[in-house]
Amino acid sequence: MVTRLSNFFLRTLREDPADAAVTSHKLLVRAGYIRPQAAGIFAWLPLGLRVKARIEAVVREEMAAAGAQEVHFPALMPREAYEATGRWEEYGDLLFRLQDRKGGDYLLAPTHEEAFTLLVKDLYSSYKDLPLTIYQIQDKYRDEARPRAGLLRGREFTMKDAYSFDASDAGLDASYMAQRDAYERIFQRLGLEYVIVQADAGAMGGSRSEEFLHPTSVGEDTFVRSAGGYAANVEAFTTIVPDALPIEGLGAPVVFDSPNTPTIQTLVDHANAHLDAPAPGIAGPATDGATEWTAAHTLKNVVLALTHLDGTRELVIVGIPGDRDVDDKRAEVAFAPAAVEAATTEDFERNPLLVKGYIGPWSETGAVLGEESATGIRYLLDPRVVDGTAWVTGANIDEKHVHTLVAGRDFAGDGFVEIANVREGDPAPDGSGPVELARGMEIGHVFQLGRKYAEALGLKVLDENGKLVTVTMGSYGIGITRILAIIAELNNDDKGLIWPASVAPFDVQVVATGREPVVFEVSEQLSSELEAAGLDVLYDDRPKVSPGVKFGDAELVGVPKIVIVGRSAADGQVEVWDRRSGDREIVPVGEVVARLHG
Amino acid sequence: MVTRLSNFFLRTLREDPADAAVTSHKLLVRAGYIRPQAAGIFAWLPLGLRVKARIEAVVREEMAAAGAQEVHFPALMPREAYEATGRWEEYGDLLFRLQDRKGGDYLLAPTHEEAFTLLVKDLYSSYKDLPLTIYQIQDKYRDEARPRAGLLRGREFTMKDAYSFDASDAGLDASYMAQRDAYERIFQRLGLEYVIVQADAGAMGGSRSEEFLHPTSVGEDTFVRSAGGYAANVEAFTTIVPDALPIEGLGAPVVFDSPNTPTIQTLVDHANAHLDAPAPGIAGPATDGATEWTAAHTLKNVVLALTHLDGTRELVIVGIPGDRDVDDKRAEVAFAPAAVEAATTEDFERNPLLVKGYIGPWSETGAVLGEESATGIRYLLDPRVVDGTAWVTGANIDEKHVHTLVAGRDFAGDGFVEIANVREGDPAPDGSGPVELARGMEIGHVFQLGRKYAEALGLKVLDENGKLVTVTMGSYGIGITRILAIIAELNNDDKGLIWPASVAPFDVQVVATGREPVVFEVSEQLSSELEAAGLDVLYDDRPKVSPGVKFGDAELVGVPKIVIVGRSAADGQVEVWDRRSGDREIVPVGEVVARLHG
Repeated sequence: MVTRLSNFFLRTLREDPADAAVTSHKLLVRAGYIRPQAAGIFAWLPLGLRVKARIEAVVREEMAAAGAQEVHFPALMPREAYEATGRWEEYGDLLFRLQDRKGGDYLLAPTHEEAFTLLVKDLYSSYKDLPLTIYQIQDKYRDEARPRAGLLRGREFTMKDAYSFDASDAGLDASYMAQRDAYERIFQRLGLEYVIVQADAGAMGGSRSEEFLHPTSVGEDTFVRSAGGYAANVEAFTTIVPDALPIEGLGAPVVFDSPNTPTIQTLVDHANAHLDAPAPGIAGPATDGATEWTAAHTLKNVVLALTHLDGTRELVIVGIPGDRDVDDKRAEVAFAPAAVEAATTEDFERNPLLVKGYIGPWSETGAVLGEESATGIRYLLDPRVVDGTAWVTGANIDEKHVHTLVAGRDFAGDGFVEIANVREGDPAPDGSGPVELARGMEIGHVFQLGRKYAEALGLKVLDENGKLVTVTMGSYGIGITRILAIIAELNNDDKGLIWPASVAPFDVQVVATGREPVVFEVSEQLSSELEAAGLDVLYDDRPKVSPGVKFGDAELVGVPKIVIVGRSAADGQVEVWDRRSGDREIVPVGEVVARLHG
Repeated sequence: MVTRLSNFFLRTLREDPADAAVTSHKLLVRAGYIRPQAAGIFAWLPLGLRVKARIEAVVREEMAAAGAQEVHFPALMPREAYEATGRWEEYGDLLFRLQDRKGGDYLLAPTHEEAFTLLVKDLYSSYKDLPLTIYQIQDKYRDEARPRAGLLRGREFTMKDAYSFDASDAGLDASYMAQRDAYERIFQRLGLEYVIVQADAGAMGGSRSEEFLHPTSVGEDTFVRSAGGYAANVEAFTTIVPDALPIEGLGAPVVFDSPNTPTIQTLVDHANAHLDAPAPGIAGPATDGATEWTAAHTLKNVVLALTHLDGTRELVIVGIPGDRDVDDKRAEVAFAPAAVEAATTEDFERNPLLVKGYIGPWSETGAVLGEESATGIRYLLDPRVVDGTAWVTGANIDEKHVHTLVAGRDFAGDGFVEIANVREGDPAPDGSGPVELARGMEIGHVFQLGRKYAEALGLKVLDENGKLVTVTMGSYGIGITRILAIIAELNNDDKGLIWPASVAPFDVQVVATGREPVVFEVSEQLSSELEAAGLDVLYDDRPKVSPGVKFGDAELVGVPKIVIVGRSAADGQVEVWDRRSGDREIVPVGEVVARLHG
């Protein structure tokens, strides 16, 4: 059935919505695809629903081809299972929680790992039942603190979440690859360029974890890649640990006056002005052969405050080379599930042994940082601070630093942690050469959960020998509404949206211009023929709207092919307009169907 | 793609679920269509999802044919609009309410009248934009007190809710009829017999309201119908008000002793034992010509307690003929939005003028019931208590009643109310004869909302004369998951489900029995051919499962046609088994596709 604009539920808007910061948000609202209902919560209008349905159809087809079966869970779930896995607490403010009339606790599920695990536990009991991959396409909720980017990060969003169940690790690998392959096909069909990057498996306890990122300079995620094929999220990047250096032959620590040097740069300037040049071999690999002091010679001790799940607050100090900064995302992942922030003035006041700006692990009277030290504060080191490296760092006395302070001789940490930023040129951990930094948008995530959920919820099956084994699981997510927004974000110009054919709300828009009856007769006939040929047609049949307004609406809405039927329709001529290239071509009416169908 | 039982996500269960009281609940769980997640909240397994999708497809096709356009709203909605229409309060405990991290109030929408109204207000402004009918198929929430009947009344349920918008009453009538016609086609396609009954428009402020009921003796709703074509919900049934009777010539009220007569029956027995027979003409039409006292001569004064939306509690007394009882549903509708219950002992204690068991409107010292009376309690009368009817009723003195108490002379009410039950033989209000009572299940509701929502939320459009007019609306609902349950409820036997072809999860189930390779070869080939012919095939390819178990599973799952491939497959013979009739017929393999496709 041809859809007619004269009664189609659509109003295009001239003005960008006031609260919209990103292009997809602006255009999807202006072109009549979605309407805001509350912060990060949208209603779907007929146009938007059509695009969403096409994306869902692609995902469903590829899920079926990969052997995944569709199920559906409610958004409203009882607390118990989420309590058992710890997520009821861990999710913090991100979780919408509520009570029913009897006071029972419920949540709006942000994902359904627990429910899928319990469902399989409910119905399956033998390794013969496995492998199994089941999925749903479902509306999820997450109470984001700042839901500002329209559908890119909403508080309600539609996700395809799949979960695989296997009795063995080899089985999990196979199920994982089947989903990973399906994702590649999905993004290819949707015309979305992607990079598969290693992601941090993090606190979820899994092993293999990869993100599909669409590389774009406006992406919100940073990733690293090497020419040799390495690609990872910054959170997942690991530093190659340098070999330890010989300690023998290094001089003793030297405390020196360093007035007004609370920052790395002031300290380096002071050192170059007042100290001898660094002795050969006193520092680590990063400073080999340096003839003057640099930030890489210094050890920066960053004071962080962790808030653990039970609410306790713990100070932690991390020593990182002074030429690097803390990467907040790496820190977040490194300390998860604890929340991490910079220490506050109050934290310093409660720890008077910490001399702000001059903190270091060592003093002439003994260790200052570390669980066994005077402060008792846990002290963690960047992996580059290997034994035998010598550093300039705080002497724990106001306006004094120390140099030639040697790791493994003068100080040690309670452990290592990776929270320093990754830089262009850092070596990829797999030896494939130096990395570059790039930006991207997450479009999918495949993830070996391992046995965390199955263990927490008791999902076991009998193996070949009649022995109970815990099932191993994978989790595979695609944000349907997020992908829709990303496609909109990547496919537009200053006139409006430009949908790829694979997800466009209509295949062709027929625009009748002018007032002559022949225009409407030809448009009507052509629309029917296009529809009969299997194309979805939006026919702009509005009788008293100017060609300029109709063209503007067509450009804003972004149907990929537009057929303009004007005065020359009487002579059997119409124009076929390609929305993306802007090319217009005069085509005999009789050839339009063949042209557009091809 | 043929679906194979060997890896299909399905486990049939031998036992009924412990908490299931209705057949559809038991069978849908046992046959692997749904799994409970919490009271009244279910997950959908692949089989269930298939049936649901087929019902949704029928509804979508008929909505499109009726010119309705699909949109989609979130389940999570902000409080404001529901506050403006009063529903935030009115819904009481039925509403799931929650707050976001900023303390903003939200609800899980039970229906979306407000949101649809605001959406149209957002985008439309002229009568030329109308008529418009938009709908969604969406998961809704309602915190039912006793969600016991599986999908028949769940706390989460999928609904198609449509809303029409018109500038005129005539337009609303046309939009209403288009939806009503669509509903008839939907139920015909789903094979669901239906009766369209008048329903009460109630507190919603609308005018025309009809329910589609499936007539069945196990239905939860009572409706009335006459041979002459009248059909209504009991809530919507109206009593024909009898003409007033002459008061002249009636005797004065007579108080009489009536010890131990707190009930109607004891009172009637007492009157027949101790009083003269009723004088001719002293009572209303229901008792004409009676030669002894009956319950119909008595006036029962029922003390009810209303709880208004603002929380205040009000006693109301309703006088109804003693041969009728209060119908709770009619009372609920009559007093909505106030909640109604029987008065408690405390209520009586607070009103010492009420003599329990002997309450009446009159006493020798003046009126007892009514806003202007000694008690000040509002007094409402059944419509049959017309002027000139004479009654036996309480005298407001312990163990005393009064007879020949005449309405319009000795007492009057503050108004009339219809809360008495409807009985077989009561005259239909449209004059089409006596009614009978029947039971049914609600399967759809069409409803003229009128201007209530548009007024509350300010939805106006410019009319032909450039004047702002308030839009008039209709609301049209079908419970998708409820209909699925009703179809299951109506289509089963002691072996399991029997799906109608229009909604079956698969068209045909091929069952391979035995161990001979030829059985599996023929089954495989036949399944592919059936699938190629456009049928959805479930192939029971399980290699080591006995024929008995396979047949039992097939009967429980309820696919309408079953093809049994056994030993005689080697001779080109299979059996086609009709699940509903139970007939089995031997058919040459080569003819199966033609047979089942026809």
